[in-house]
Order: sequence, then C-alpha cells, then structure tokens
Amino acid sequence: MSHNTFGHLFRVTTWGESHGPAIGCVVDGCPPLIPLSEADLQPWLDRRKPGGSRFVTQRRESDTARILSGVFDDGDGPVTTGAPIAIQIDNEDARSKDYGDIARAFRPGHADYTYQAKYGVRDHRGGGRSSARETALRVAAGVVARKVLGETVRIRAGVVQLGSHRIAPEAVDFDAVYDNPLFAASADVVPAWEAYLDGVRKAGSSIGAVVALEATGVPAGWGAPVYGKLDAELAAAMMSINAVKGVEIGAGFGAAELAGEANADAMRLGEDGRPVFLTNHAGGVLGGISTGQPLTARVAFKPTSSILTPGQTITRDGIETEVSTRGRHDPCVALRGVPVVEAMAACVLADAMLRHRAQVG
Amino acid sequence: MSHNTFGHLFRVTTWGESHGPAIGCVVDGCPPLIPLSEADLQPWLDRRKPGGSRFVTQRRESDTARILSGVFDDGDGPVTTGAPIAIQIDNEDARSKDYGDIARAFRPGHADYTYQAKYGVRDHRGGGRSSARETALRVAAGVVARKVLGETVRIRAGVVQLGSHRIAPEAVDFDAVYDNPLFAASADVVPAWEAYLDGVRKAGSSIGAVVALEATGVPAGWGAPVYGKLDAELAAAMMSINAVKGVEIGAGFGAAELAGEANADAMRLGEDGRPVFLTNHAGGVLGGISTGQPLTARVAFKPTSSILTPGQTITRDGIETEVSTRGRHDPCVALRGVPVVEAMAACVLADAMLRHRAQVG
Amino acid sequence: MSHNTFGHLFRVTTWGESHGPAIGCVVDGCPPLIPLSEADLQPWLDRRKPGGSRFVTQRRESDTARILSGVFDDGDGPVTTGAPIAIQIDNEDARSKDYGDIARAFRPGHADYTYQAKYGVRDHRGGGRSSARETALRVAAGVVARKVLGETVRIRAGVVQLGSHRIAPEAVDFDAVYDNPLFAASADVVPAWEAYLDGVRKAGSSIGAVVALEATGVPAGWGAPVYGKLDAELAAAMMSINAVKGVEIGAGFGAAELAGEANADAMRLGEDGRPVFLTNHAGGVLGGISTGQPLTARVAFKPTSSILTPGQTITRDGIETEVSTRGRHDPCVALRGVPVVEAMAACVLADAMLRHRAQVG
Amino acid sequence: MSHNTFGHLFRVTTWGESHGPAIGCVVDGCPPLIPLSEADLQPWLDRRKPGGSRFVTQRRESDTARILSGVFDDGDGPVTTGAPIAIQIDNEDARSKDYGDIARAFRPGHADYTYQAKYGVRDHRGGGRSSARETALRVAAGVVARKVLGETVRIRAGVVQLGSHRIAPEAVDFDAVYDNPLFAASADVVPAWEAYLDGVRKAGSSIGAVVALEATGVPAGWGAPVYGKLDAELAAAMMSINAVKGVEIGAGFGAAELAGEANADAMRLGEDGRPVFLTNHAGGVLGGISTGQPLTARVAFKPTSSILTPGQTITRDGIETEVSTRGRHDPCVALRGVPVVEAMAACVLADAMLRHRAQVG
Repeated sequence: MSHNTFGHLFRVTTWGESHGPAIGCVVDGCPPLIPLSEADLQPWLDRRKPGGSRFVTQRRESDTARILSGVFDDGDGPVTTGAPIAIQIDNEDARSKDYGDIARAFRPGHADYTYQAKYGVRDHRGGGRSSARETALRVAAGVVARKVLGETVRIRAGVVQLGSHRIAPEAVDFDAVYDNPLFAASADVVPAWEAYLDGVRKAGSSIGAVVALEATGVPAGWGAPVYGKLDAELAAAMMSINAVKGVEIGAGFGAAELAGEANADAMRLGEDGRPVFLTNHAGGVLGGISTGQPLTARVAFKPTSSILTPGQTITRDGIETEVSTRGRHDPCVALRGVPVVEAMAACVLADAMLRHRAQVG
Repeated sequence: MSHNTFGHLFRVTTWGESHGPAIGCVVDGCPPLIPLSEADLQPWLDRRKPGGSRFVTQRRESDTARILSGVFDDGDGPVTTGAPIAIQIDNEDARSKDYGDIARAFRPGHADYTYQAKYGVRDHRGGGRSSARETALRVAAGVVARKVLGETVRIRAGVVQLGSHRIAPEAVDFDAVYDNPLFAASADVVPAWEAYLDGVRKAGSSIGAVVALEATGVPAGWGAPVYGKLDAELAAAMMSINAVKGVEIGAGFGAAELAGEANADAMRLGEDGRPVFLTNHAGGVLGGISTGQPLTARVAFKPTSSILTPGQTITRDGIETEVSTRGRHDPCVALRGVPVVEAMAACVLADAMLRHRAQVG
Repeated sequence: MSHNTFGHLFRVTTWGESHGPAIGCVVDGCPPLIPLSEADLQPWLDRRKPGGSRFVTQRRESDTARILSGVFDDGDGPVTTGAPIAIQIDNEDARSKDYGDIARAFRPGHADYTYQAKYGVRDHRGGGRSSARETALRVAAGVVARKVLGETVRIRAGVVQLGSHRIAPEAVDFDAVYDNPLFAASADVVPAWEAYLDGVRKAGSSIGAVVALEATGVPAGWGAPVYGKLDAELAAAMMSINAVKGVEIGAGFGAAELAGEANADAMRLGEDGRPVFLTNHAGGVLGGISTGQPLTARVAFKPTSSILTPGQTITRDGIETEVSTRGRHDPCVALRGVPVVEAMAACVLADAMLRHRAQVG
Repeated sequence: MSHNTFGHLFRVTTWGESHGPAIGCVVDGCPPLIPLSEADLQPWLDRRKPGGSRFVTQRRESDTARILSGVFDDGDGPVTTGAPIAIQIDNEDARSKDYGDIARAFRPGHADYTYQAKYGVRDHRGGGRSSARETALRVAAGVVARKVLGETVRIRAGVVQLGSHRIAPEAVDFDAVYDNPLFAASADVVPAWEAYLDGVRKAGSSIGAVVALEATGVPAGWGAPVYGKLDAELAAAMMSINAVKGVEIGAGFGAAELAGEANADAMRLGEDGRPVFLTNHAGGVLGGISTGQPLTARVAFKPTSSILTPGQTITRDGIETEVSTRGRHDPCVALRGVPVVEAMAACVLADAMLRHRAQVG
C-alpha cells in the first residue's frame, strides 16, 4: 500500500492513465513454476471490461492483456519463473475529445479537484490516473493471485444491494453472479433490477450498490497481529477500489447492535474431530487471523459520479460553472466492481499465504 | 502495516502482552524539535485506561508511560530529536490466576483459537498479544502524531450508537465526549444510555457500538493514488483496532442507496475565493486524496467477547467444554475505543502529512 | 530493495528479461511538475547501450525508451504528474539461438545455477532476468532521479582502475569519462588502456575494473540513522549492480590502515562562515548522514564471466561439461557500468532527499 | 532498512541513546516455537560488551539483556510465540559529565555535526543515538537470528587486518577469534598485535582494521533478484555498522584485477553427485542468490574517532576550537565489531531464509 503498490510479498504495482497509450502492472514475488498464460487472464478481464451490456460504459476496449515478462516456456507450457510479471493492456478507445470541456472544470464526486490540489497538475483525459480503468490491472493481478492460492481457496462476490433493493442474506447465490448482466447474487432479482437500472440509465443518473464477498477454503492461521491483521489488509484493499465508501467484515455494522451472547461464535468438534464454529459473525477472522470459516465481507460503492444532470462546480482558475458528463459511463459502477472485489481479495489472500508460510513454514 | 508496525514514514511498532512485565512502542520517523514529555502522554492515556468508571474493566492500571529515548532536553525542555521514541508502560495488575482456567479452552469471540492455530503456541494470560491492552500504546503514539500535525488539525471521536440506541447525526456533539463516562457524542443520551449499559453490565453481558470520527483542518492534497489512498489507510488503521468489524467513510454504506445527483458534493467559491463544497458525502476524500473538508468516518465495534454467560467451545486438546469470563471486562469495548480511534486517525494523518511533504514539498 | 524494487519514496521497480519482448520500469513517488520527456532519457541510455565501441558487446539495440505514463503535457511541454512513470524499451536484437547450447549448462560465474537452484526454472535466453540488460532501466530511472535532485547535485563516475592499471587519485578527471570509449577518468591513460583491452578482447578474455563515484552539491543532513544510513543505502545500490563485488566509501579499505589522527577530517570555518572540512576521508558521510562534502565511493567490478575459453561446469541434469561464450559480450563489464553507477547514486540521493524532506521539512 | 529498522520479514527495530535510561530492540516476524531465553543472549552480548580487556573501552556495563515480550513458557521452557520480541538493556554507567565539554563542539570523525545539521538538535551525551552502544542490540537480535537459522548455518568472523598488519588468507582460523582479546582470526599474530595495539592505546591513538566474515551451511537459493540481492542486503547490513567504510564479497576489490578465466568458479559434480565449485571467488553468491558455497565477505572499519590528540573543529555556534576525547574509548573499534558483523550477517540470512520460504516454499 505504498502509493501505487499493493501487498507485502505478493506485490502488485500498477501504472497508466485512462487515455494514455497503455496501462500495466508488475506482479512481483510470485512463486515460480505456476502455469500462467495470457489465455488465463482474458476470461476474468472480459468480466470487467466495458461494453459487455447496456448497464456498463460503452467505451470500446478489447482489454487484451499481454504478459511481457516473468513467464517462460521450457517445453511444457509457460510457467512463472519467480521474476516480476509485467502485464500490459493497450488503450484503444481513448476519445480524449469527449473530455475536452472538462479539462478545466472539476467534476463533482471525481478526483479532479484533489489531484489538482495535491500535484498542481492532472491528466484530465478520462480521469487520468484516477479512472476506474486502472481496476482492469487489479483483475489481471487477481488471476495470478488465484493461481498462487490454488484450487482450494474459492473467492466469489456479487451485488447484493442495488440502491435500496436488497437480496436477503439467505437468498444470496454467488453462482448466479456471472450469469446476469447486473452481477446480482440472485437470479430472482434480475428482472426487477434490470427494469430499475434501465430507468436510472435512461435518466442519465446513477445509483450506489453493495457487493458481498465470500472466500472459502482459507485455512485457519492466515493473517497476523496487530497491524497486519487479515481484515485490516482486506479493508484497505477494498477501500482502495474506486468509489468504495465502506467495508464490513462478518456481522459488520450489524455487530454494533448485538449482545455478546449473540455475537460470539460457539465452537464444537466436527464429525472429523476438527474444530467447527456454529455461526460466523466473525466473518472468518478473529484477532486478525483466519479461523478456517468462510471469509465474508460487504463493500459499499457510491453511485457513479458521472451523470447527465449538470452539477455545480468550479474551474481550476477559480470560476464557478456547471459540468455534466456527456461521455460514456456506468449507471452503477459497483457492477463492474464485482470482479475487482474478487481480485483484491485474491491478492490479499495470496499475500497472506506467502507471509504465513514465511513465518510459520 | 507489517505485522506489528503501522505507518510508512511515521511508523509505530508495538510490543508486549497483557500479562507480561510491560508493553511498549517505538515511534520512528518523527520530525525533530517537537516538544514532547511524559506529561503530554498521560492525559490521553488516562482517557483510555481501565478503572475510570463502572462501565469499563476494573483492572487497576495506572498506565504510567515512560519515554526512554528520542527526546532530549538541551535546556529549553524536552524535544524530539528525530531518533526513535520508545514509550513503555509497566503492567501492574496482571492477575494471571484469573485466567488460569482458560489456559486451554478457546474463549469464543477471542483470538485464542486463531493464535494457537497459527503459531502452535499462545500466551493465554489475559489474551496475551491480542489483548486490547495493546491499544494504550496506540493512544501514546497518537499523542506524538497529534504533535506532528500541530494545532490546525483537530481529531475527535465519540460513541454515536450503543447497541440499537442512536444519536441523530444532527445531534452529534463531539465536545460532550470526554465529559461523560460513556464517551457518548451527546450529553442528552447519557442518562438513558447509562441505565441501559448498567443493565448490560449487571447481566454480565456486553453490547456493540459505533464510534464516529471527525478530523477537521486537514488541507486538500493529503493521501495518494491508488493503493495508498487516505481512506484505504484509514480503513486499515480502524480495522486493526481490536473488536472493529466495519469502517465507512463519509456517506459510507448509505451511499449505496444514493443516486449520483444526491451523492456528488457540489463545489462553489467561498467568500474568501477558495473552493468550498456544499455537502460532504465524500467524507473529505476524493480519489484517495483529502478535499479540505472534514474527514468523517464511522467505525463499528462488536460487543466484548468476554461475558458471564458460559459459551460453548473446545480446548486445544480437542475436548468440548464451556467457558465464561469471570475476570474483569468492559461491557462495551467501544467506549475505551474512542481515544484509540482518534489516535489511529492521528497516526494515519501524520503519516500522510509526511508522505505528502516528501513528494510534493 | 524488495526483490525487484529499489528505494523507499523514490521507488524504482524493473521487469523484463534479456530476450523477452521488452524490458521496463515503473518509477513511483516522483514529485510532480518536473519537465520530463523521452528526449531526456536517450542521451543517458546511449552512454550505456551496446554497440557503441569495440570494447562493448556488439548486440544491436537502439535502446529507445518510451514513457507510457506519469507525464502530461498541458500545453507547456510534458511534466511529471506525481503518478507512476512507466518506461519501456523493446528488445530488438534478441538472438536466442546464440544461447541455445547453454540452455542446460550453467555458465561459470553467471547466475544460471543459482536461479535454477532457487526457482526450479530459469529463462536461460541471454541470462534472462539476470542479464545486465536490466541496467538500462536503472539508467533511465537515474535520469528521472537527476531531475528530482536538480542542477545543484552533480553525480559523476568513471573507471579508475582497469585490471591492475590504476589512475592515481590526484589524476582523476571525471570530465574525461564520456569522451573516451573506456569511460576512463583520465584522458592520459586511454591509449595504453585501449591497447591493453584490445588484447583482452582479442583473446576472448575479460578483465575486472574499479569505478569511482563522486557526488557534489549534496547538502549536509541527508540520510538517516541507523539502518537507513546514506552509505548503507549506497552500498546496497552499488552491490545490486551486476558483477559488483565491493563497495567502499571515502577512504574505504584504506581507512583500515589509518590512525585516528590521520583519518578524522578536521573542521574549520570557511570564508563565508560556513563549516568546511579540511579533508574528506569520510567520503561525505558521518554517522550515515551527509556532511556537505562530496560523496565519494569506489565500486569493484569482477571481469565479465562470458569468455571464449571453455570453462568446466555441469548441466541442470547433473552432467559434467564445458561451456564457452560464443555470443557477443563485453571484455570489461565495468565500462558500461559507469552510467549505471551514476544512475544508482542518483536514485539513492533522490530517495534520500525526499525522505529528508519528509522528516525534517 | 527504514531508518531504525532492519530487515523485511525478520525485522529488527532498535531505539535508545548512549546515555539515556536504556536501549532496546524489537524483533518482529520471528517464527514461533523457537526456544529462547535471556540466558541465550548473554554469552554473545558478553563478547561485545565493554570492559572485557584493556583493548576496549573501560565503560562499565553489565549489558544485561531482559526479554520483555514475545516468549512464553507453557511448561517446557520459554519459546518464541510469533509476537514481537522486545529486548532491553539498561544503561548503567552513563557518565554524562565526561562529555560535558563536547556538548557544543563537533568531534571530528563523529556524527555530531551531521546529526546537528540534519535535525537541529542532538543528544550529545556519549554520541547519543550514533553511539556504538546501539550495536549491543544488533548482537542480541543476531542471537535470535541464529536460532531461526538453526545449527546448519554457521556464521563466524574475526579481525584479519589490524592497521597494516595482515593475516594471510590461508592462515585465517576463525576458531581462534574468541580466544584472544583482539578477536584476531589467528592465534599466531596475537602477541605481536597486542604489543602493537598497546602502543596505539597508550598513545591515546586508534587504528582501523578489517574483519573477515564466513557463513557456511547456507543452501543454494537464498537471496533474490535484482535489488533484493543477498550480497546487496549484506553490504547494507555491514555498512550500517558504526565505523564501517567498505564491504567486499568473495574476491571483492581483488576481482577487479582478475581475468575472466581466473575469476569464474568452475563447477563439477561432487562424490555425492551434487554440484561443487572448485573455487569461491564469488564468495558464495551469484546473481544475488547463494550458491551453497561459504558466504565470504570482508568489512573495513575506520579507526576510532575518539582520540587523545586534540583535533580542529567548530562549535555549533560557529566558533573554531579544538576537541579531544578524555572519556573512555576503544583503540580499535573493529575488535568489538566482530560479534556485530556476525550478528548482522545472521539477521540478513534469517531474513533471506524467511523470504525464500515465502516465495518458493
């Protein structure tokens, strides 16, 4: 978490602006001998890429990822070598002229003002460095992280709340997520949600959402006291995603209303003689270390700030004005956030796995 | 956030167990020539220390902090020298026998099981390293951080929700916090909350709570893209506090229900010609960089896991048993969490200040 | 210094193999508003690039660097934006077949064996990740570092010893370095050294050398106790360069033979009333912090391991064999190491400058 | 190597000044279940502690180390728990008055001036933070590191050059080191060296020295490309020791005079079918990764700067003066540097071991 780098041992550094020639990442610290090719990356990138449905931005990007280093094929197919893995995606549809009129005005809800305030300069084209386009690289890195984790750890996420429309906890079905264009964690809500989001979209508006995350197969013992807590790392990872405004683990904010008797997860011995928890209010983490239960979290996304309705703002020269987004945008940025949430969880867990292995063997 | 160290440039490393001889921290990277003495630390430590009211644990600790290095008095009073500042607090009331019967059983909701699973050994006495006693050092480090930040930045927190009892946002008054034993951010709720928490306490139960945080005076420009986001650092800092299960910035989870028009904070020019935001749904952060508005966050604490009611659990030898806490405990751990939330915010901001100064000057 | 990343605040991450499609680096933490274009990089890269004379490898690489992110031209020419700067160089002349016969044999003196031992796989083509080709990126990053440092700090290096041929300390003239193909720090030695190195080259042999470094204009106060010492950072930077086997600061190993009276640099007041040192055995560093005197160091390079004479070795399948280098190589790898030494010094100093500014302002 | 912290996974943070109440360190990242007690520390500390012979400072310090955290005795003796290990040594003989007259004058060769220049304040008492007293903590941390490494890795060092008196490479005998008060790596030189150093001591002068280091039992594969090279880490570790001015690995500066044929270490198969090197010019490292051969290095120490002869200097108020050391001092600081060199090597190797285990398993 050092500016543009994430992770301690499984380290991801990203670079690139929305409308520059390309974006890329370097994944360092990856174990060797893991089969990895560009074909592994593409299906995951496709889930996040623009243009996939009417509910996401119509920017045309194939999001084709190339691996430029760190893998080698010595006859049995490409494997990681332990050297840094450079992944690169060219920007193809960078219509800078779309953004010409906002070169000077700060779009409300965007990072335009803060980048200018911090650096005294900003690449305004499409949001530059602050564009959600950067998250494609998180997805790519997440694929590598999943490979590091292996088959046992399964990471899934999905939209469980769209605006004020909620999926009941007992109805959450992560298997449904990639079968509907809303990334909804229930097939049942899709028709109603589609109608609702169509309305939002046609009005040139946007809406927030909540994404739920679940990682199963995480063994007990990953994470570390007291500042390297697994949930602290996860919270940072999620909050680093564009538009995220809240993170909760397990019972989360709901735990604030619980009595101690209701919140503590009782332990018994399972049929195989191994410890089992009867509930999972902890969300799979106690004292910053995984319990062996599913790791569960919920992530709140604000609505896309790019909307049709003109918003009051100022220019960098200190003139009051109004600005609206005429370019392409997502009516609900959380949708494409689903694979990003999964990817960041994968990176956190791969890092935790390596760190655990380092200290405990 | 490397195991037991927090921060990048303003770095805090803590050590010590609940029932060891002492606990301590090392604050490295502190700017020189800042007046600092033990007398500066004590008032803040006293706010967190046990035994202050019937609503917190009755463990008797004076929590007297000694500064063992990094300050020097050359005639004008002690100032920081730029060298690491070691702060130490002796453990005085470590009644290990209170915990003798839980040496083998894993207390539900505590980190007993996960520490054992990770390390194969744990200092069970009073929770050892996972005890909330460690947070005294965060408070001490937070005092140093406040000194680094100076008078302009003001950091305040308070309990705004106790169980299901809420203080309305418009009624939040941080000035009230340290004038009542509940650290409640409103004097009005205190009688009712006291009655309620007395009931919880007498029943040997516990309850969760939400702590609100506000930092004013933070200039626009602190923080960094994209993994070093100010809100990502803040989320990690808060989630690293014992018992915290959720963090939200600005509108937080509420933003998930907002339309883009409602969420985006419009900008105008103030009377002094400087940018002003008409609302603050962003909570003072856009794109991971501070806007100059108040930094606002809310932190959810789970109920204390130590309760009188016996809970089902197992021993490390794999035997099913029940365990209850007969030792001293806090009926609502969030109360003493208030100064800890403030301290962690101070550490995050001091670190952000130094990092900003490094890159931008 | 985390695997493939160098620096704390001015951070350089490199990636790429000798015979992959490209090599690249990401420079993160660079201050904004620094003019920077590809034209700035090229002259320095040209100094290191192959094919420049008969004394360096004849591999044909234009070493044309492209900047893919982190700079923006808002009308007054491209400047850094504070975002990560991605620099990329395509590999053009990657004759993998030259190396076909050494795919299995470990070349003595190279990292072939150790990479295989560590990772169980290696990109053997041209040395893969361990190739000195990576140092082109150090030179590119060094250009950015020089820009951060500004005009006041001047960093120069040159060959002062070639095999057993030495330039006397009082004859060292860094102005001569880039005017002769040997990067010798004296024009006087060039004819004799050329004749000597021609002999080495024609014999298919190689020879070691020592490069001297001097940085002037470094103000007193950069660096930090006690593990972040400026000379410790510099030593790590130099030792991380391919083929380097020794580093000394100031009087270096010579200081081992000095008495305290001879070694300590006396201080007086200069004409301007500022402190001056009468000698500089310290090499510009005391206690890990710069004194304001020139920073001086010497760096020992071993001879190129690629030589024509067959050397005894084994294959990765455990068979004894002999291997010689028929590909292109440098008779003295230290020559092209000169701009690399300068670049690493620039990176160390830029990092130290930002770190100092962070802590002290 | 972040200011006062050393290491990546096996992390040592030290604090404390020469004449403060105590000095201490925190060792974080240590694997659990390693037997460790205060009795383990003392023999190593005793080797470095002052007052052991007439050749080292007569300051009276028992250097008794207490372990305040991170170990727990659950019945089978104290073992590490994976939590941070705090080690503390009280300062007993801090005669501040000895240094009263140098409170304002900068001692030549010391860090007085640079600390003042950097921080604008310095704890002048006995050198404050820059005192070699800090190295006691390195020795303590080194004991923990040795425990992490286990019995297989053996780390030894000794003085091989005292002023211009050298021990021939073939005569180096590390077994002799702790049997003579000069830490000389040969019993044969002791009488002559004692006579020589007595002369230096009686003259109130000092002399430099070279310490050789050897670590056997390091398996092939530790270390990492390209900035995390094992030798780069080792160089930084050594250069961070007080008074060190040079580091060389294997043939070191001598490699600059070698031809490629002479320098490259040929490989053959040993009797057990495993790779063996016929020579070790590389010093056990190729491409930054260990070869499995002994790791060898040489470290140059400058003479103690504290000498009886008055040296020209200035005061912090800008007045020219002279200063001499009337306090206790070491005629050759390298002597007590021997256990420090060993300890730093142990820390580097323990860190490398954990990092290797993390990435490769």
